[in-house]
Amino acid sequence: MAGGVGERFWPASRRQRPKQLLDLTGQGSMIRLTLARLEGLATPGETFVFTNREQRDAIMDEVAGLVPPENVVGEPDVRNTAPCIGLAAVVARARGGERTMLVLPADHLVAPVGRFQELVRAGARHVEAHADLLTFGVTPTRPETGYGYIRLAEPAGDGGAPLFRVAAFLEKPDAARARRLVAEGCLWNSGMFMWRTDTVLEGLARHLPELGAVLGRIASGMGTRPLAEVLNEEYVRAPAISIDYGLMEKAENVVALRADFDWNDVGSWEFIRDAYPADDQGNVAVGDHVLIDGSNNTIVSREQLVAIVGVDDVVVVEDGGAILVCRRDRVQEVKRVVAELKKRGRSDLT
Amino acid sequence: MAGGVGERFWPASRRQRPKQLLDLTGQGSMIRLTLARLEGLATPGETFVFTNREQRDAIMDEVAGLVPPENVVGEPDVRNTAPCIGLAAVVARARGGERTMLVLPADHLVAPVGRFQELVRAGARHVEAHADLLTFGVTPTRPETGYGYIRLAEPAGDGGAPLFRVAAFLEKPDAARARRLVAEGCLWNSGMFMWRTDTVLEGLARHLPELGAVLGRIASGMGTRPLAEVLNEEYVRAPAISIDYGLMEKAENVVALRADFDWNDVGSWEFIRDAYPADDQGNVAVGDHVLIDGSNNTIVSREQLVAIVGVDDVVVVEDGGAILVCRRDRVQEVKRVVAELKKRGRSDLT
Repeated sequence: MAGGVGERFWPASRRQRPKQLLDLTGQGSMIRLTLARLEGLATPGETFVFTNREQRDAIMDEVAGLVPPENVVGEPDVRNTAPCIGLAAVVARARGGERTMLVLPADHLVAPVGRFQELVRAGARHVEAHADLLTFGVTPTRPETGYGYIRLAEPAGDGGAPLFRVAAFLEKPDAARARRLVAEGCLWNSGMFMWRTDTVLEGLARHLPELGAVLGRIASGMGTRPLAEVLNEEYVRAPAISIDYGLMEKAENVVALRADFDWNDVGSWEFIRDAYPADDQGNVAVGDHVLIDGSNNTIVSREQLVAIVGVDDVVVVEDGGAILVCRRDRVQEVKRVVAELKKRGRSDLT
Repeated sequence: MAGGVGERFWPASRRQRPKQLLDLTGQGSMIRLTLARLEGLATPGETFVFTNREQRDAIMDEVAGLVPPENVVGEPDVRNTAPCIGLAAVVARARGGERTMLVLPADHLVAPVGRFQELVRAGARHVEAHADLLTFGVTPTRPETGYGYIRLAEPAGDGGAPLFRVAAFLEKPDAARARRLVAEGCLWNSGMFMWRTDTVLEGLARHLPELGAVLGRIASGMGTRPLAEVLNEEYVRAPAISIDYGLMEKAENVVALRADFDWNDVGSWEFIRDAYPADDQGNVAVGDHVLIDGSNNTIVSREQLVAIVGVDDVVVVEDGGAILVCRRDRVQEVKRVVAELKKRGRSDLT
C-alpha cells in the first residue's frame, strides 16, 4: 500500500513526492526498503503496489526492477485501506488464483529482516491452514501514545507461531493508559496483515457488503476491459473506510501475531531521531548545518545550510524550496501547514 | 563610510553583499537611503564613498548616478574609522580645497530627512565659524543597551543649534545604567560627525601622530601617482583605531549636537521589527511564509517559503542559500555563525 502523501513530512513530502518515495534513513526510499524486505518471500511478479493515479508514474520509476509495471496499480481516488486491500485481493486472484496475501504499508520500517521473514512464514502457514484474518501486533518497547494497541485473548493456532485471538482493538491512548497497556502485554497495532485472498474477500463481502458488491463488479469487469477503465467506473463508488474499522473489529476469525521485531511507522519528523545519532546536547542533524549553542533540536537540510543560534527543542527542515520551523512536541501539526498552503492554492509547495 | 560587512545580518550579508547594499526596509539599499538624505546638502561631485577594495565594484554599481566613480574610494585594507576619516579629509581637500565635512555611516537610518538636514546646516554653520569637532548625539527614545552614550556639559556655540560641550563618552551600559543615563539627559553616540577638513586633520596629527604622518605621505603622493598605488603603500601602515577612541575622546574642541530625529544604527535582525509592523501575536514577517501558531517571531524569507508551527521568540532568515534560526535575544551572536563558516572555509556562504 503506497497511496498516501505523508503530509507530516512536509516540506520533504509533496503530492508528487510522497513519503514512500523519500529517503529518510539514508539507506533508500521507504518503498524500496519495504520491497527489499520481501526478497525470498515473493517474486517480483507476485508483488503488487497499490497507489493513486497521481503518484503511479513516480512509484513505477522508483520500484523499477523490483515490481513489474503492470503490478503497480493506480487507484483513481483515495478510498482508505479497506477498498485498497479488497482491490488487491481481486487483482492478485485474477492474476494467479487464490493466494496468501501479505499486506504491508510502503512507508514503515522493520528490522531485522530475518526475524520479519520468519514470522511472515509462520503466519502464512497458519492462514493457509485456517481461514483466519491475521494482524501483526508488535511488542511495545515504550509506552507510545502515537499508536493503537491490540489486547490479546487466548493463544490460537497450532503452536507454530506466537498467535492469539484478539480481545480488543484499542484507540491511541494517553500517556498513563499507554503505560498500563504496555504493562498488561498489549501490542502495537502495526497495520500489517496476512490472509488468503478468499478469506479477506469473504470477510469484506459479509461485513462491508457495499464494498463487496463493488469488488465483485471489478472482478467481472477485469475479464473484458482494461483495469483502469473498470476502476474509473467502480472504484470511486467504494465506501472510504479503513480495514481496521470495516473488517478487523467486526470479524470473528481474527488472530494477532505477536511480532518481536523492531517496527516504526515513520509517522513524523520525530522519526529522524530514531534513524540518526544525537550529539551530546541531544541535537540530531542530517545535512549541511552550523550549530552555535542549542539543544534537543532536529535539523534536516537538503540543499541549503541551516544555522542554529541558541534555540532548543525545534525541528528545522529545509527541502524543495520551503523551510519548516516547528516545536518538536507539535510535529503532528505539520499537516496544518499543508492544509493552509492548499487553501492558498500553493500547488508549487504541496 | 561603507566599508563594513555587517556580519550580524548573515545570511543576507556576505563579503560581496555587505549590509550597506541590502534592502532591509523595502525602500532601497541602506547606502542609497543614506545618499538620498544628502540631496540638497551636497552635489554628487561633493559626495565620497569610502569602502574596501573587495566591495568597491559592487558599491560603485549601487551608487551609480548618485556618486561619480572616481569618488568611490577602495581602501586596500580595513583600518577602522580614524584612518578612513583621515583619508576622506585628505582626498576631499585634494579635490576641492578646505571643506566642511559631514561623516555618515552608510548603513544607518535617519528620519525625517527634513529635520536631519536642518540640523546638519546648523551644525555646519557652527564648525565653519569655530574650529570644533562636532559629533551628532541622538535624543534617546528608550534605555537602549546597544549604543554608547554622550554626557553633555555646558551649551556651546552661538545659540543657532542645540550644541553642547561634551563631559564624557560612555561605553554601552547595562539596562539599569541605561535607564539612569536616559533620565540624566545623555545622548546616543550615533557615529555621525561634522568638521572642517583642516580641523580634523590637525586633530589627527596632534592626537594620532602616526596616522597624521601616513596621511601626510598620502597627501603628497596623490599629486604624482594614482591614489590606489599610494594607498597600497601607505594606507596599510595606518594604525587601526576608531575616531572615537583616537580623536574625539582626547580632543578639547569637541561639541555634541543634540539631534531629535529618529535614528537607528540597524545593528541586528531585531531591526526588522522597527521597519515592519507586527501582527497581534507580535510576529513580524517579510516574505513568503505560513504561521501556524507562534508569537513574537521575526521572519525574513527571500526565495523560499518559511512555515512556523508553535515556535516563539525566534528569528528565521532565509537568504542566498542559507537559513538562520536564532533566538531573538541572541541576535548579536549571528557573527559566530560567520566565524564558524570562515573557519570551515565556506567562502560560498560568507
